Amino acid sequence: MTGLAVQERFITLEGGEGAGKSTVIAALRDALEAAGEDVVCTREPGGTPLAEEIRGLLLDPQHEAAVPQAELLLVFAARAQHVKRTILPALQRGAWVICDRFTDSSYAYQGGGRGLDAQFIAELERRAVGILPAMTLLLDIDVHEGRVRTSSRDLWPDRIEREQEDFFARARGVFLMRAEADPGRFRVIDAARPRERVAAEAVAHLLRLRESSR
Amino acid sequence: MTGLAVQERFITLEGGEGAGKSTVIAALRDALEAAGEDVVCTREPGGTPLAEEIRGLLLDPQHEAAVPQAELLLVFAARAQHVKRTILPALQRGAWVICDRFTDSSYAYQGGGRGLDAQFIAELERRAVGILPAMTLLLDIDVHEGRVRTSSRDLWPDRIEREQEDFFARARGVFLMRAEADPGRFRVIDAARPRERVAAEAVAHLLRLRESSR
Repeated sequence: MTGLAVQERFITLEGGEGAGKSTVIAALRDALEAAGEDVVCTREPGGTPLAEEIRGLLLDPQHEAAVPQAELLLVFAARAQHVKRTILPALQRGAWVICDRFTDSSYAYQGGGRGLDAQFIAELERRAVGILPAMTLLLDIDVHEGRVRTSSRDLWPDRIEREQEDFFARARGVFLMRAEADPGRFRVIDAARPRERVAAEAVAHLLRLRESSR
Repeated sequence: MTGLAVQERFITLEGGEGAGKSTVIAALRDALEAAGEDVVCTREPGGTPLAEEIRGLLLDPQHEAAVPQAELLLVFAARAQHVKRTILPALQRGAWVICDRFTDSSYAYQGGGRGLDAQFIAELERRAVGILPAMTLLLDIDVHEGRVRTSSRDLWPDRIEREQEDFFARARGVFLMRAEADPGRFRVIDAARPRERVAAEAVAHLLRLRESSR
């Protein structure tokens, strides 16, 4: 229907600032490795040498700020490279790929946050990405609470982290709307709870997915 | 019809390697300045600090090569930034803008050269660029002859210059096809002739355009 190919062993994590994605990714990796699986953990924007350089242009405040359309196209340039050079090769050799942020973040941040047209984002997704994860874990947390959690560690906030709360509130709204529209792919996890409980719930979702696909 | 806004004082130069664009641009600038006009000369990819950094990622062979879709999106990210931050502000204050390459180059190199879909390029043009030059000077030259002319100066060819002749032949074909489809905008100049004659013809086209728009 969407023209996108669902990839069985491809898992993405989404969520706002301070939702605890890193802890969850480490737990998912440990669980898969304990089960004898090959696992690649990667992130967006980034995941190849070129895509990491694009990440620097996007996030490092020392560069000229991209206008919204340029930001969107840079994000998708990095994603096209990442899919072709890192994600698909790993999936094709049978590895699991766990990715910190993916296309849903573009709908949330460039669409919801910056107000760019979701139809254009969908066209870029279809033309330059072409794949969907089998499961997306949305670590959902109140915007203010998430930012309180990260404020201590962010001495040098990047360009996105410098945005205001209403930007993140719009992004959160898009994440939740997308999760509601695609319950087969999304698992919404309440990330306001202690990190170990959040990670345990994520691991349980992953192991159920793995069982159902064997 | 195209949804693109034609900009009266916006002139672009297109053409293959060794067509002599730099000489022509200098002559156009001199002619306009002699007539008392404010002139901005700029280039693509590039024309703002961020767009010049994107240019480096695209052309400098020390970076990981972009896959074709990523190359296309990087080019349009740079162009979106260039239009919004450099070209439109200059036009709005009444300056002429002379740009070394613009969207036609994406149809030629990423479309013709790399084989990407022209419909997608048109969608990017509509969404992220939005403007068309009043006049495009196409400096047309035989691919082989153009490359012989540049070979002496290119000790360190960039990533595009390293392509093979058939890549440039496809690009030339697209340039000529676009010129034929839009004779109101394009002036095709035979660039195999001596540089002064090529420059003089370009200046004559520019001065006629300036007269007709007064």
